[in-house]
Amino acid sequence: MKAKLISIGDEILIGQIINTNAAFIGERFYSAGIPVLKNTVIGDEENILMEELSDSEMNYDVTIITGGLGPTHDDITKPVLVKYFNDKLISDTKVLEHVRNIFLSRNINMPLVNEAQALIPSNSKVIWNSNGTAPGILIVKDKKVFVALPGVPYEMKPMIDEQVIPFLIKFFDLNNKLIHRQKTLLTTGMGESSLNELLGNISELIGESKLAFLPSSSGVRLRINVTEENESEAEDKLFLIENKIRDKIGEFIFGEGEIDLENVIGQILKERNLKLALAESCTGGRISSRIVSVPGSSEYYLGGVCTYSNEMKISILGVNEDTLNKFGAVSKETATELAECVRKITDADYAISTTGIAGPTGGTEEKPVGLVWIGFADRKSSYAQKFLFGNNREINIQRSSQRALDILRRELLGIKTEY
Amino acid sequence: MKAKLISIGDEILIGQIINTNAAFIGERFYSAGIPVLKNTVIGDEENILMEELSDSEMNYDVTIITGGLGPTHDDITKPVLVKYFNDKLISDTKVLEHVRNIFLSRNINMPLVNEAQALIPSNSKVIWNSNGTAPGILIVKDKKVFVALPGVPYEMKPMIDEQVIPFLIKFFDLNNKLIHRQKTLLTTGMGESSLNELLGNISELIGESKLAFLPSSSGVRLRINVTEENESEAEDKLFLIENKIRDKIGEFIFGEGEIDLENVIGQILKERNLKLALAESCTGGRISSRIVSVPGSSEYYLGGVCTYSNEMKISILGVNEDTLNKFGAVSKETATELAECVRKITDADYAISTTGIAGPTGGTEEKPVGLVWIGFADRKSSYAQKFLFGNNREINIQRSSQRALDILRRELLGIKTEY
Repeated sequence: MKAKLISIGDEILIGQIINTNAAFIGERFYSAGIPVLKNTVIGDEENILMEELSDSEMNYDVTIITGGLGPTHDDITKPVLVKYFNDKLISDTKVLEHVRNIFLSRNINMPLVNEAQALIPSNSKVIWNSNGTAPGILIVKDKKVFVALPGVPYEMKPMIDEQVIPFLIKFFDLNNKLIHRQKTLLTTGMGESSLNELLGNISELIGESKLAFLPSSSGVRLRINVTEENESEAEDKLFLIENKIRDKIGEFIFGEGEIDLENVIGQILKERNLKLALAESCTGGRISSRIVSVPGSSEYYLGGVCTYSNEMKISILGVNEDTLNKFGAVSKETATELAECVRKITDADYAISTTGIAGPTGGTEEKPVGLVWIGFADRKSSYAQKFLFGNNREINIQRSSQRALDILRRELLGIKTEY
Repeated sequence: MKAKLISIGDEILIGQIINTNAAFIGERFYSAGIPVLKNTVIGDEENILMEELSDSEMNYDVTIITGGLGPTHDDITKPVLVKYFNDKLISDTKVLEHVRNIFLSRNINMPLVNEAQALIPSNSKVIWNSNGTAPGILIVKDKKVFVALPGVPYEMKPMIDEQVIPFLIKFFDLNNKLIHRQKTLLTTGMGESSLNELLGNISELIGESKLAFLPSSSGVRLRINVTEENESEAEDKLFLIENKIRDKIGEFIFGEGEIDLENVIGQILKERNLKLALAESCTGGRISSRIVSVPGSSEYYLGGVCTYSNEMKISILGVNEDTLNKFGAVSKETATELAECVRKITDADYAISTTGIAGPTGGTEEKPVGLVWIGFADRKSSYAQKFLFGNNREINIQRSSQRALDILRRELLGIKTEY
């Protein structure tokens, strides 16, 4: 079972848009047992898409096309599909009604151009788009499946999960094939090569399976891939490898799959009915924003203060002016006080704080760009840890927020190791 | 002049990593006059990479390979390059010293595996990696250029800008060819099809040039592409088209190129020496985080309060308890007071606030998920605007933060239109 993904759009090749769709589709198709073996990104050019469709029909079981279904003049997918399959466009009544209703519900008059959204090839099946106006299109020819979907991620994603994958599993009877399973262990606080060293001999650890190291500024993800004859063998192998890895580097693993550190922390705080508050300086709301991205975070997150100016540190949080004068805003003492103050004001169980020099300018010899203090306070104690990151503002903010959340995770789990 | 990009990594196909590198490289190569006409994403498989290299050598002038240069067992790029070009690996002294220094500066013992980072094909040129341990590799064969770069974005990007592009411009003498120019106008506050309608007849507007509509949750980007015989004709054409577009939808255009709304606002606040403060509820620090992402934002951003709980709205900001009781946290009155209170406390010139129901749960018939009030206050006046977004928490937070910043932009520029 082989899939190919054709991502359409000059905007992707030219770099105006990042191809997040490919990642999503790749993951879903891999899990369904139809791995995407090739993803070709091409421009809005009729001839090239015709060639790609012909390559797809010859070499792949399933072809997914994303993009180019919009209502404007630069959208070529439907005309090319009609040409390639020697078909014609017809208007779908239900889709037209759906498009009209979307505009109606937003109190906007429907621009005329949107009527074309309801046109689909006569020999195709509509893939319903609940979140937008452009329907998806499914065409089957000689046991080969072609699916065209809109490029807007939040429209395309549910269409894949709720309609395309279930169709393919049924159509190709995928429940009786070789089983691929993957699991990703998420680590933070330790670099790729150090993890590699801690893990020792990789082939002893994983045998015929695969282990990939996927570094990013928030940590290294370890992806285990196994392929076995059946479900239970695959699950057993995955379990065995995971346990071996956890034995060696367990304390750095904060979660599995696609979860973020803020979700892990949120779950613990919620279960234990604990409250969190934040005082952010150099991260400027990044940690708060991550905490709040989790649905239901209002149950454990009281709020945060982003005290960018010294005046606000004093007036809103009550940080001691002497501390700021004597040690400076970027110091162990200020970081500790920020956490203590915001915890007291809000009566939270836990507080974390950040203060540092995010860059690219503003550093001194004594306090260089990349220097960050992260403060922690609970009802009994408080402290601050020092970190030295790099010169890139965005990465410094990312790393600081990740380390701050990891300090909280370690406190919540009783892992006291300094790193 | 044609370029092809080969992105290597199972992690991309399987969807564990988003291919942001492709967007960056696509943009840079397009501007340099070597457009990427195809981007193929393939797995960590020797045979497939060998085939891709052969296709590249036949059909493209330049091939960029990203990924697979790391120190771990799953990195295949160097072994395959050596095999394809019938070469051997040698250790580069300078690179080895650089790798050692990186570990030294972080006070970490260098894991042995990192010595392999200094190995490069004997017939290649090193592309220096200032931000990491894996060097880039440049190989020239019969006027075809092959470049292998690490997959870590902040390592790869400066290598492209400072070394690869300058090399290619010189090598291919690119200053005497057909001129491609593009410009992107960034809009917010109006949907794709409504903009399309406001713009009227597109081919009258742009002639032989191209105009792409690139929608996202923060707005629609309009990309103009022109191709002309020389620099000045290209610039003139671009200028003409841009002015026609601005005539029709100017008030929705907040910037050009890759700039974000927070940068545009930051520049205005800085120039006029004005100060900003924030009171965020439903956006939970997202606006603050965006403001702070701009280097130098401490000059105009005093700070923000993320009052997630009602208690914090009262205790820290001094919002009237009666307002909360009578109208609720998500109301015109509370939004207005949040902005007024944070402005007064910080003595800022401008304040914006958000309060809403981000979802996915927590809505009522009267106040459904997606309802957001955005408050504004300056030294003379205050008000709040109501928005009704959708059911997706992340998108509601994104849209709220974008609309809040746009309200501020319109106030700063004196554009009073409600939208």
